[in-house]
Amino acid sequence: MSTLTPVSSFDDLRSLVRQLPQPDTAAAEACRRHEAELTKPAGALGRLEELTCWLSAWQGRHPPRLDRVLILVFVGWHEIAKHKVSAYPAEVTDQMVLNFQAGGAAINQLARLAGAELQVIPVGQGRPAHDFTRRPAMSEAGCVRALNIGLSAVPEDIDLLAIGEMGIANTTAAAAIAAGLYGEPATAWTGPGTGLDTSGVAHKAEVIQGALDRHRAALKDPLEVLRYVGGRELAAMLGAILAARLRRVPVILDGFTSTVPAAVLQALDPASIEHCRSGHCSAEPGHRRLLDRIGQRPLLELGMRLGEASGAAVALQLVRAAVACHNGMATFESAGVSRKR
Amino acid sequence: MSTLTPVSSFDDLRSLVRQLPQPDTAAAEACRRHEAELTKPAGALGRLEELTCWLSAWQGRHPPRLDRVLILVFVGWHEIAKHKVSAYPAEVTDQMVLNFQAGGAAINQLARLAGAELQVIPVGQGRPAHDFTRRPAMSEAGCVRALNIGLSAVPEDIDLLAIGEMGIANTTAAAAIAAGLYGEPATAWTGPGTGLDTSGVAHKAEVIQGALDRHRAALKDPLEVLRYVGGRELAAMLGAILAARLRRVPVILDGFTSTVPAAVLQALDPASIEHCRSGHCSAEPGHRRLLDRIGQRPLLELGMRLGEASGAAVALQLVRAAVACHNGMATFESAGVSRKR
Repeated sequence: MSTLTPVSSFDDLRSLVRQLPQPDTAAAEACRRHEAELTKPAGALGRLEELTCWLSAWQGRHPPRLDRVLILVFVGWHEIAKHKVSAYPAEVTDQMVLNFQAGGAAINQLARLAGAELQVIPVGQGRPAHDFTRRPAMSEAGCVRALNIGLSAVPEDIDLLAIGEMGIANTTAAAAIAAGLYGEPATAWTGPGTGLDTSGVAHKAEVIQGALDRHRAALKDPLEVLRYVGGRELAAMLGAILAARLRRVPVILDGFTSTVPAAVLQALDPASIEHCRSGHCSAEPGHRRLLDRIGQRPLLELGMRLGEASGAAVALQLVRAAVACHNGMATFESAGVSRKR
Repeated sequence: MSTLTPVSSFDDLRSLVRQLPQPDTAAAEACRRHEAELTKPAGALGRLEELTCWLSAWQGRHPPRLDRVLILVFVGWHEIAKHKVSAYPAEVTDQMVLNFQAGGAAINQLARLAGAELQVIPVGQGRPAHDFTRRPAMSEAGCVRALNIGLSAVPEDIDLLAIGEMGIANTTAAAAIAAGLYGEPATAWTGPGTGLDTSGVAHKAEVIQGALDRHRAALKDPLEVLRYVGGRELAAMLGAILAARLRRVPVILDGFTSTVPAAVLQALDPASIEHCRSGHCSAEPGHRRLLDRIGQRPLLELGMRLGEASGAAVALQLVRAAVACHNGMATFESAGVSRKR
């Protein structure tokens, strides 16, 4: 398997973003032509028909295939957790890594059901992102290390990638990044995460706003926003989304926290996340706002708010449904079915 | 397998509806208690958690199971098709029956993917529902025969049933039933079906309105509405939904045309379709209106409009996701994960 060259700096990453591969319009067109021949009224499978053509465009292949589907869950640790910004204690991050390894988490069940491989990737275990109310969450070198973990996590021979995360306090980092990226107050992006009550959410927003105020001068650049108020798993997800694009692998995003790195990448280049689709809109209020901002329409809306790529994994089944129909159905001609008059 | 006694008249069916089994609240409560123990914030799986408790309540069993899932597609023929109310010629109904048998339709692919058995049941092939602009679509005896086909189609040992239909011109019958049931003009319920243009939809609404005006005096009773302006597959679906209730089998509804018989049943008894969930909201405009009317919130909204139980079959995967998590996840205690503080 060929490996992507690691980046050595933010500038290095910015040059990668200037060389992104484009969709294969011929494969997408072949897909659209075939959809029109299948025994159903044109468009009657709705968004499933868009999914097949999106897959074809990014896989550069018609028919699209889903032989190897991978789910990557990036796990991160956050000193910001000590400010009581999460409903759960910080040790849950370590405990959940063990739970993933033992097969007991939701994503273990959902990955198996979706016929997907699952890899859980701890990013900087024992080296949490710094308390960003006091100093930048990461050095540039630390952020680059995390970006490279994501860049190197995407094999070249996969057909579809789903991306998710776990990390107590990481909706705090995600909300801080979104607020920093769009120059908006923390309250616009702060939500209950794993289950804060109203006063908990207000406190969390205050913590974030304090950090934004402190670092305001540095928040002009998307990668600096990620570095100052983000976290290692968020950087790794950006790396993985970028690696998927470089390898022409379509990506299904999960919830608010996995969509934030996509938004950072989009801020670097508006066309850089066209290979991504939002798997679902979560119950975290910032998620819908962010999807609107980046122009993504989620496939599912089930009130999920677990992270772990759980919503993306459920959405994988919709992609499988799309491909099963596209690749398995008879045509009007082969089945002898009359066309629309 | 025990069989349900066929009904011999509408009155017979009305008595059945007065003896409906109720949900097992103890099983549902056991399900809710177990959801709260699983390694996720309470409610973090959103509607998936409601689905498991709904299954438990109607299966009368905790944990719920999905060992045997059945998809029933009822096919009907309609003389009303000669009024050019469909974008496709009437012979497509026969052609699609062959396509289902050969495995070439969308539902064949989606049933396989969902791990569900598929049965396609022609209802009155060679004996179409009459042109209801001139006479009732069915005699009471003919309607009762179709109801019994549905009543006898549901085995007692299945864990979940999905219901759908196929039949050129049957959205015309479905819209006529909805308009008759709620005493509203045809235009409120008429849509493009398989793909009529604006003038085609207007013509279809005129055909329906003419029939409603002609039969107005008879449209006081839900079953008479079904008989006068419905069709055999619509009656069979009502029978199957009722049989599922009598056998405590939860039901996933498909699109507009499969939701109409559920609405007829609900008009007979408001609590009679509590064992049903709407799998999706289709692009047919009357569907959303009808879901609002019967108080159902669809699981999916993908712009599908194919019928054949296709949307319900995709929704089956969400139910499988719910059960996979509920039955497979570790608990806080078993995984040693700390609880919310």
